[in-house]
Amino acid sequence: MRLLIRGGTIVNADQSFRGDVLCENGKIVAIGENLSAPSGAEIVDAGGCMVMPGGIDPHTHMQLPFMGTVASEDFYTGTAAGLAGGTTMIIDFVIPSPQQDILEAFHQWREWAEKSAADYSFHVAITWWDDSVREAMKTLAEEYGINSFKHFMAYKGAIMADDEILVNSFRRARELGAICTVHAENGELVFQLQQEVLAQGITGPEGHPMSRPPIVEGEAANRAIQIANVMDVPLYLVHTSCDEALSAITRARQTGQRVFGEVLAGHLVIDDSVYRNSDWATAAAHVMSPPFRPKGHQEKLWQGLQSGMLQTTATDHCCFCEPQKSMGRDDFTKIPNGTAGVEDRMHVLWDQGVNTGRLTPNEFVAVTSTNAAKIFNIYPRKGCVQVGADADLVVWDPTATRTISKDTHHQNIDFNIFEGMKVTGINIATISNGNLVYSKGELRAVKGAGNYIERPCFPNY
Amino acid sequence: MRLLIRGGTIVNADQSFRGDVLCENGKIVAIGENLSAPSGAEIVDAGGCMVMPGGIDPHTHMQLPFMGTVASEDFYTGTAAGLAGGTTMIIDFVIPSPQQDILEAFHQWREWAEKSAADYSFHVAITWWDDSVREAMKTLAEEYGINSFKHFMAYKGAIMADDEILVNSFRRARELGAICTVHAENGELVFQLQQEVLAQGITGPEGHPMSRPPIVEGEAANRAIQIANVMDVPLYLVHTSCDEALSAITRARQTGQRVFGEVLAGHLVIDDSVYRNSDWATAAAHVMSPPFRPKGHQEKLWQGLQSGMLQTTATDHCCFCEPQKSMGRDDFTKIPNGTAGVEDRMHVLWDQGVNTGRLTPNEFVAVTSTNAAKIFNIYPRKGCVQVGADADLVVWDPTATRTISKDTHHQNIDFNIFEGMKVTGINIATISNGNLVYSKGELRAVKGAGNYIERPCFPNY
Amino acid sequence: MRLLIRGGTIVNADQSFRGDVLCENGKIVAIGENLSAPSGAEIVDAGGCMVMPGGIDPHTHMQLPFMGTVASEDFYTGTAAGLAGGTTMIIDFVIPSPQQDILEAFHQWREWAEKSAADYSFHVAITWWDDSVREAMKTLAEEYGINSFKHFMAYKGAIMADDEILVNSFRRARELGAICTVHAENGELVFQLQQEVLAQGITGPEGHPMSRPPIVEGEAANRAIQIANVMDVPLYLVHTSCDEALSAITRARQTGQRVFGEVLAGHLVIDDSVYRNSDWATAAAHVMSPPFRPKGHQEKLWQGLQSGMLQTTATDHCCFCEPQKSMGRDDFTKIPNGTAGVEDRMHVLWDQGVNTGRLTPNEFVAVTSTNAAKIFNIYPRKGCVQVGADADLVVWDPTATRTISKDTHHQNIDFNIFEGMKVTGINIATISNGNLVYSKGELRAVKGAGNYIERPCFPNY
Amino acid sequence: MRLLIRGGTIVNADQSFRGDVLCENGKIVAIGENLSAPSGAEIVDAGGCMVMPGGIDPHTHMQLPFMGTVASEDFYTGTAAGLAGGTTMIIDFVIPSPQQDILEAFHQWREWAEKSAADYSFHVAITWWDDSVREAMKTLAEEYGINSFKHFMAYKGAIMADDEILVNSFRRARELGAICTVHAENGELVFQLQQEVLAQGITGPEGHPMSRPPIVEGEAANRAIQIANVMDVPLYLVHTSCDEALSAITRARQTGQRVFGEVLAGHLVIDDSVYRNSDWATAAAHVMSPPFRPKGHQEKLWQGLQSGMLQTTATDHCCFCEPQKSMGRDDFTKIPNGTAGVEDRMHVLWDQGVNTGRLTPNEFVAVTSTNAAKIFNIYPRKGCVQVGADADLVVWDPTATRTISKDTHHQNIDFNIFEGMKVTGINIATISNGNLVYSKGELRAVKGAGNYIERPCFPNY
Ligand SMILES: [Zn+2]
Ligand SMILES: [Zn+2]
Ligand SMILES: [Zn+2]
Ligand SMILES: [Zn+2]
Ligand SMILES: [Zn+2]
Ligand SMILES: [Zn+2]
Ligand SMILES: [Zn+2]
Ligand SMILES: [Zn+2]
Repeated sequence: MRLLIRGGTIVNADQSFRGDVLCENGKIVAIGENLSAPSGAEIVDAGGCMVMPGGIDPHTHMQLPFMGTVASEDFYTGTAAGLAGGTTMIIDFVIPSPQQDILEAFHQWREWAEKSAADYSFHVAITWWDDSVREAMKTLAEEYGINSFKHFMAYKGAIMADDEILVNSFRRARELGAICTVHAENGELVFQLQQEVLAQGITGPEGHPMSRPPIVEGEAANRAIQIANVMDVPLYLVHTSCDEALSAITRARQTGQRVFGEVLAGHLVIDDSVYRNSDWATAAAHVMSPPFRPKGHQEKLWQGLQSGMLQTTATDHCCFCEPQKSMGRDDFTKIPNGTAGVEDRMHVLWDQGVNTGRLTPNEFVAVTSTNAAKIFNIYPRKGCVQVGADADLVVWDPTATRTISKDTHHQNIDFNIFEGMKVTGINIATISNGNLVYSKGELRAVKGAGNYIERPCFPNY
Repeated sequence: MRLLIRGGTIVNADQSFRGDVLCENGKIVAIGENLSAPSGAEIVDAGGCMVMPGGIDPHTHMQLPFMGTVASEDFYTGTAAGLAGGTTMIIDFVIPSPQQDILEAFHQWREWAEKSAADYSFHVAITWWDDSVREAMKTLAEEYGINSFKHFMAYKGAIMADDEILVNSFRRARELGAICTVHAENGELVFQLQQEVLAQGITGPEGHPMSRPPIVEGEAANRAIQIANVMDVPLYLVHTSCDEALSAITRARQTGQRVFGEVLAGHLVIDDSVYRNSDWATAAAHVMSPPFRPKGHQEKLWQGLQSGMLQTTATDHCCFCEPQKSMGRDDFTKIPNGTAGVEDRMHVLWDQGVNTGRLTPNEFVAVTSTNAAKIFNIYPRKGCVQVGADADLVVWDPTATRTISKDTHHQNIDFNIFEGMKVTGINIATISNGNLVYSKGELRAVKGAGNYIERPCFPNY
Repeated sequence: MRLLIRGGTIVNADQSFRGDVLCENGKIVAIGENLSAPSGAEIVDAGGCMVMPGGIDPHTHMQLPFMGTVASEDFYTGTAAGLAGGTTMIIDFVIPSPQQDILEAFHQWREWAEKSAADYSFHVAITWWDDSVREAMKTLAEEYGINSFKHFMAYKGAIMADDEILVNSFRRARELGAICTVHAENGELVFQLQQEVLAQGITGPEGHPMSRPPIVEGEAANRAIQIANVMDVPLYLVHTSCDEALSAITRARQTGQRVFGEVLAGHLVIDDSVYRNSDWATAAAHVMSPPFRPKGHQEKLWQGLQSGMLQTTATDHCCFCEPQKSMGRDDFTKIPNGTAGVEDRMHVLWDQGVNTGRLTPNEFVAVTSTNAAKIFNIYPRKGCVQVGADADLVVWDPTATRTISKDTHHQNIDFNIFEGMKVTGINIATISNGNLVYSKGELRAVKGAGNYIERPCFPNY
Repeated sequence: MRLLIRGGTIVNADQSFRGDVLCENGKIVAIGENLSAPSGAEIVDAGGCMVMPGGIDPHTHMQLPFMGTVASEDFYTGTAAGLAGGTTMIIDFVIPSPQQDILEAFHQWREWAEKSAADYSFHVAITWWDDSVREAMKTLAEEYGINSFKHFMAYKGAIMADDEILVNSFRRARELGAICTVHAENGELVFQLQQEVLAQGITGPEGHPMSRPPIVEGEAANRAIQIANVMDVPLYLVHTSCDEALSAITRARQTGQRVFGEVLAGHLVIDDSVYRNSDWATAAAHVMSPPFRPKGHQEKLWQGLQSGMLQTTATDHCCFCEPQKSMGRDDFTKIPNGTAGVEDRMHVLWDQGVNTGRLTPNEFVAVTSTNAAKIFNIYPRKGCVQVGADADLVVWDPTATRTISKDTHHQNIDFNIFEGMKVTGINIATISNGNLVYSKGELRAVKGAGNYIERPCFPNY
């Protein structure tokens, strides 16, 4: 149960320095130059490499029941794929059906997640409202370590939260010291545009972005932010995908409002030309919401990360294979929404972020791990290489390369949106709870080894 | 039926020049220097004065049934007061109750308005939605000269239009070539804040602005604009009162979107300190929505007029006397919302706009008359001094003065929000449909002399 | 000397209406339906066409001595080409050398311009400063009808005006009731970047945009605007070419500052890929300052016109043929800067502006004629079809087409930056001072027929 | 030489935790709960208190020769006053006269600073340009630990840097891996406005802000930022005092540009009404540049700190007593510019920043210490409580109070701009280089105990 990482440069969000890292019983117990190895300790050579906090993906959907099917990636395969890619913790979502008992849903998800190979936690969605929901939020916050509640402003007729739900839930979250998160798309507009697009005879995947233009996200982002402002609660916008939503965040942050923005690896590097691919399956494989955006938005999102207007990166990892996607072959609104990426996020971010000069290595750590830990109040247990922290680490070789492909990835899906991208700078080892779970291509993920992480309320911001 | 205005300087939105104006049968029939007076023509001496298009107030509520009472100013007294102040046309509102037949409401309002002393027209509010409403909009547009439909985003539980109504109505308006207008305040937030403020034990008028902060208007303004953008319909925001809403308009206009903003004379010169007046009646007399705003917003609104981001000025003239206001003595949410101003708008605008150097006389004409005529597609019949136009005119003496007071105004209300303001630059004569209806303090308004003005759809913008 | 335009729709900036137009002795003397033709009147059939104010190009450089050569287009050929394309007036520039007597330069340019076929006026550049310049500005303003002074913020070592010149000249202009205009590029940065680019071994035209990036224009635009703000003088930015400069204008206008922006037809439709043309001559033919900009800026400029943040369109018409351009074959900084367009501006604006739905016909008139007339204080003598105005008119057939080409244009240059563009909507006739000078392809320009137009100070804004 | 701080909560920029801190030989050697005291160690009781990194004031002017006199505070008294107020390091300025040898000036300032009681470093001003300056910059950077060069855009005729100097120096700084800093005010406009104000007969301190309006700062800030962008060098704006400059920074940061902004404690809490004080000496005591700003700007600056658009706080500590200020009794332009504050900054920031809820304690540490250390590349040696860092610490009692007054402060000046402010939350002890130099009101500063701190080039941003 002891592991010594030797000879690397430790890279935290705030500083870099030379040092060995000794892990014991899942924790970092010593950091220093030339640490001597305790007897029986496993040695990881980090010479020429960086040692960084393991990635935290704050937005995944393992084995999600959605749109008439269930996501193909389960908590074990998904967390294992994450470990292969340097991500040592995910925050998934409990999504109760409208009228469903929220605690019941919570326990259901907890059960599903027990097989996780890496640490995990849950945001809980508020999809309807009455006094029992109000009570359940308290129970979740005070007894189960839930400090973030999610609201879908889209998906009319299903899980959409209207202004009344938003206002009530936001106020309750304020009382509990929790943070609110939103999927920001105006569900009414999406619904109407879907009808209009279908009415024009457009049934293929190219109709998907037509029915969800950036302005639809910008409107919802702005609305959620203003409601949070009035309700005086911190807000976190998941998968900010366009300039319009980023601008709404920026305007709010400039007044000192506590608003946070997440961006997906996919939205940073992929544009909406994918929906015009002549191969239906390829186009459909990219169907997710919000959709990939026209050229130009990607650079704005990078600037958002650089300027600190966006703080975290995620994947919205939600896998549907071709047979599932085919449910929408005659109607794009029936294509299950979702793309994968939990294994690739760190690599894409380094290659396109650090190698291009957009981000320093310290900033890379911040946007892949530290900031998520801070916002969701598990820092410095997670998100930092320091004594006392959980031993979730990656050994990063900035010169090593990988060509991303569905043929070699560990994700349980038959497609990769980053297919063929050759990235330079990857993790050559991953340590999860002090165990070497990935080393030079070999994945040693252990089913059920992951822990449920409670996240306390009332963060210090 | 002939009237000659002699010796003045004609001031239009685009130019000023010396000229006499001859009116006959309600129309301007000649403009030129040294016109000879036809036999029997009445002569108006405009020496040293400006001759300008009569004011158009695009936002009034005469004899409105609202909040359990009826506005004290009727269509005759209200239009007469307007004539005294240089306003020769109003656009009022037909406001059907939810589920009420819209055409029935329209005819009701038409009947009420027959006694008007000046020309008038109607915006029609869409307060609910089904196919019959959809059909009625067509009838109104094609048979009754209605080219603008109003939507209240506030007043939850009463006339509030939610996103579903907005989207359906906006789409219908696009088909008909009509423009959409909105009262922009997030009704859900207003409702919740009212409960919170009351729960804090605040029941007086000071609670009114607390329950409707600027952000609540900014959110709704932004939302309406984005919906209009997606639905591709021109949008007009009534009573823009704060920087937040103005900024939403500005952002949209900068992308070329056809969005227009109206500002009230009151919002330009009055701040929210009035709600802290120790006299309940005085504070309550200022209760209107959106409320008067903190210092600083006024200057921003003037800048909006100067930059062309706001195009029109109005009053939201809606009179409730003290006994009516007293209905809310124990609960500010029950104070009937409304303030007067149809008689004072032009004077306040000139005094605070032109005399201060903010606006040129041409710009004054634009924001008090021409722009409203253009937006609501009755230009150049209204809004311009040119041959062929309706003979709705004011003779303006930039050196004459008036001290505004409830004791001397013609409005049927026991309060004046501009009480005691001494303005320099007023109309010494008003001509309505070629008749001299106001001259040097003498009001000669004729009940029923006003015409209903049809406004065609598909304006040229 | 009489001419009757029959059967058209008159299109002004503020309205459109059916009417015939009678011209006599260079003026419009009557407008009305079914005017009878006076004896001897020439008849122009405008059936199915629009009759609009002739274009005003507020930015041309005929026969300019510049960078060691002289522009190939003289005042006769240039104004004649303008007439062929519907432009009936130009405002050119008097550009004294540093230390040159300004009045001497003015008289030199006046002499050169006597052969003009269309009306013309001059902006006068302030390229140096002492008390004699201060005095000359007064003489020009009060005796010669000059109400606009130009300042080059670029061209270090030649005609560049530094902050000290700007401040002094701006203050003097305020005293005289004149407007200031600027070519906004930071000359110091351009100079340094030119050295850097040449030092990298880049000597071809592709180095031109590298040495003048948008930020260099944005900085200068912002600086000029702030200086004008402090000096309290109206400001006009010529050839606004990029989002950065437009944003500076927008920020200022939103505070009510009197700032105006001009955009060139070329900058609206051409991007910087032209500089990477493998043919040196083609690339060099596009060298002008500011250069054509990366894709994306063009749409922003259109939005600037739509939102009214930009008011005028021009060409910066300044012709250099290939042998002249070749002076810079080994060094892009020696390529004479300039492109043509006085003949094409109106056509390009209609085709790309009106046909695309960006601008209404009324807005087209505003941005090609009326606004320039207003800003430079010759409205409504110019820029409006009304009785009493100069008879400078175009008969516009929105269905007629033209393919722009150097082989068929009337401009005295061997290149056309719009080569091959097929435009729909062109003038089939041009009337200058009441004379039919262009009709269905036949140009009847008369050398010396143009008048020098005095422009009074103290406009009404 | 050993000191143990016991029982406190350590507050760093990124986290807070309970821990004792052991210092030895000027360094922090251990951090942990319940550390045992080495023999002979001095014990500091931090029970109920926070232990934070000592403040870094990145902008002071001790004993500066300026405007014909010399600042009254020398390096000893000034650094001692800083220690009393919890500031353990200053960065002062070497300001060569134009044409003066820069290294000569540097050595002069080094000599003056030897008596400092706390650690110090220098920014070096570039006030003129030739090849020798270019060489000196290299020497300073590579041999003397100077990584920041200062440029005054104001003070025409004295130390003002025009665009040519800025461009050359910025390029040189890029080559050396240094950061550029600017005092952003357009010197030409200041000069002209001073003449205008004096010409109006205004000679008192009220003329000072009239001659330096916010727009003058906004222009210069924007210009410096754009030049830094083109030259690709990081930029730091000292004493950002107004919304206009903050907006320029914000615009740049949103594109990812590396621009940093400093704000003075005074600008955060004092407005320009001080210049209208009827007592000449009081008004004159507030004369500094940029001046205190109209109400409204202060809140914007706080928002800048909250949003991270501004990163550091400073004082521009530059003391002139009344006899010195009196040099400008007949001409405000001759009043020596400067105010004090090195002793008060931390207290004002906590009281107005943390107690009001604007900043968390962690953010307080960031803006008073950590961010300056990071930007000027001495982190984590300074700006962090961690093993290995310099033992520069404060023990902060959030309940203790102090009333700021010239009568009790340690600063060598007869005025305090925060006079009478009662602050809650102050340092009860200050540790400098491991020594307890201030404890419960007793100052034990040692002349010459401070070290010159070299700052390496090429920071990791
Ligand atoms: Zn989502
Ligand atoms: Zn999701
Ligand atoms: Zn309303
Ligand atoms: Zn109303
Ligand atoms: Zn130019
Ligand atoms: Zn030019
Ligand atoms: Zn300074
Ligand atoms: Zn200073």
